[in-house]
Amino acid sequence: MSPPEAVRAATAPEVELGEFLAGCAREVDAFLDRALPRATGPAATLGSAMRYAVLGGGKRIRPALAMASAIAVGGRLQDALPVAGALEMVHTYSLIHDDLPCMDDDDLRRGQPTVHVRYGEAIAVLAGDALHTLAFDTIAGSDGPPEVRLGCVERLAAAAGPAGMVGGQVLDMEAETRTPDTRGLEAIHRGKTGALISASVALGALAGGGTVRQADALGAFGRELGLVFQIVDDLLDEEQTSARLGKSAGKDRAAGKATYPAIHGTRGARAEASRRAGIAHELLAAVGEEPGPPVKSDGMRLLGALTDRILHRSA
Amino acid sequence: MSPPEAVRAATAPEVELGEFLAGCAREVDAFLDRALPRATGPAATLGSAMRYAVLGGGKRIRPALAMASAIAVGGRLQDALPVAGALEMVHTYSLIHDDLPCMDDDDLRRGQPTVHVRYGEAIAVLAGDALHTLAFDTIAGSDGPPEVRLGCVERLAAAAGPAGMVGGQVLDMEAETRTPDTRGLEAIHRGKTGALISASVALGALAGGGTVRQADALGAFGRELGLVFQIVDDLLDEEQTSARLGKSAGKDRAAGKATYPAIHGTRGARAEASRRAGIAHELLAAVGEEPGPPVKSDGMRLLGALTDRILHRSA
Repeated sequence: MSPPEAVRAATAPEVELGEFLAGCAREVDAFLDRALPRATGPAATLGSAMRYAVLGGGKRIRPALAMASAIAVGGRLQDALPVAGALEMVHTYSLIHDDLPCMDDDDLRRGQPTVHVRYGEAIAVLAGDALHTLAFDTIAGSDGPPEVRLGCVERLAAAAGPAGMVGGQVLDMEAETRTPDTRGLEAIHRGKTGALISASVALGALAGGGTVRQADALGAFGRELGLVFQIVDDLLDEEQTSARLGKSAGKDRAAGKATYPAIHGTRGARAEASRRAGIAHELLAAVGEEPGPPVKSDGMRLLGALTDRILHRSA
Repeated sequence: MSPPEAVRAATAPEVELGEFLAGCAREVDAFLDRALPRATGPAATLGSAMRYAVLGGGKRIRPALAMASAIAVGGRLQDALPVAGALEMVHTYSLIHDDLPCMDDDDLRRGQPTVHVRYGEAIAVLAGDALHTLAFDTIAGSDGPPEVRLGCVERLAAAAGPAGMVGGQVLDMEAETRTPDTRGLEAIHRGKTGALISASVALGALAGGGTVRQADALGAFGRELGLVFQIVDDLLDEEQTSARLGKSAGKDRAAGKATYPAIHGTRGARAEASRRAGIAHELLAAVGEEPGPPVKSDGMRLLGALTDRILHRSA
């Protein structure tokens, strides 16, 4: 068997993945509940809005990736809790700001009114800002060797900043007036979604005791996985209802946005997502060759199963 | 002589302070120019907006405080450059978001059109976000021992986050509908302005090789200095023209905002600023008693002179 087939044959059964995802969500939700400011006392509105945005649902994909990655390098799920919480904070801050009237102007998120609809625009801006800061505070103030925490801060900042997520969002905005080609679209996806998904896997590896080389190799797997995630996201925006997605569907087409389905058709986009998932599996299989603690098959299996789940998800 | 008088007698002459401030501004501007993304290539608008906001002027008070503090504990001005740059990035991000139409809705900042007037609201939100992330990236990716950089990240995040700057901004917003008393007003000031000014002094001390105890003691001095800064800010908003301030004047009174001058009158507010400056001088004089490398008189003199400059500034 070639490496990607070997990995696919070893993927965890759906039931194991389901239990893992439920466990991750439970752990990270409890962690976030402790880490977020209370919704009482002075500036209670801020804490309330932060909690509403973070604890009001969400698939917790980034925390699950971080935790599976920690397990893959021989660590424990719990080792990745602070980075998992921080990743979810950064993800949520970006959603709050993305949904603002001056950005995508969305009323619905995770099946609920968006933060600015519920709390007003000013509090939405500030709640996003506060989550953004708290993410770095959470990693810096966690346990573990200083150089590991510092490496996590640095990679998270690189992924979230102008060369990553925020840069991707600007490219995405610019694409509404100037249609990008396939390469341009890939650059948007790599920034807007891919950078943080890649960072999720890399940070989990560092927090779980993996080496920088292992974190880099897992990050490369995460970059392809990020592309899969975004192509499928674009497909779901075309194919699914708002009720199922918990956010407004059909917005890309209405905005005349360049997406994989718009450029390559639905079947072409599906094929590209599958091809990218195959590359992701290959890169995952290659992680074991990097110097560091021996990789663990249960963690690797979870990462493989997460890849397939992300490829085949319907919401 | 009692300690505060002793310190006051030793303050640097105005000419020395002027040269120091000009040197700080030159150094930090060159650093920021290197650290900020180019205004070319993809997502050029983002880099352009970030540069417009950061490099378009500003008094560079926070960088100067960080650099003077580094000198005070025996370090070099240059040791504090990364934290100085990061502090100015966080300060500028908060100004961009504060000026948004959904917040203070200001058209003028540092004598120029605000970022959202010049680039649109969406880019203003994202440029603020990008500066916020880049601040942490800048500290994490700088030189120096990991535990020092990590301590700086942690203190900056604490100062900027929900228990600091952002929390203070929410309290400030809430005060527009529910007038605070003197203590409530102090809580707003401590969060909105004081936390970042205190962090400026503390981060400079850490970056300059000072101990945690010295950083804490200098941070306590910075907390009082932050109150002086904000009371004088409120006074200037009442007394000065927009042209002189480079931002819209008279907005607090128009908004019916609770300020020191509004509660205590102009003379009462002046007296309170002087009293707080006196406490700041006392706390500064006490820094030398903390364990750590011997404090240097030139740095201490600069911090004392900066205190007086902040008290007596007219813009």
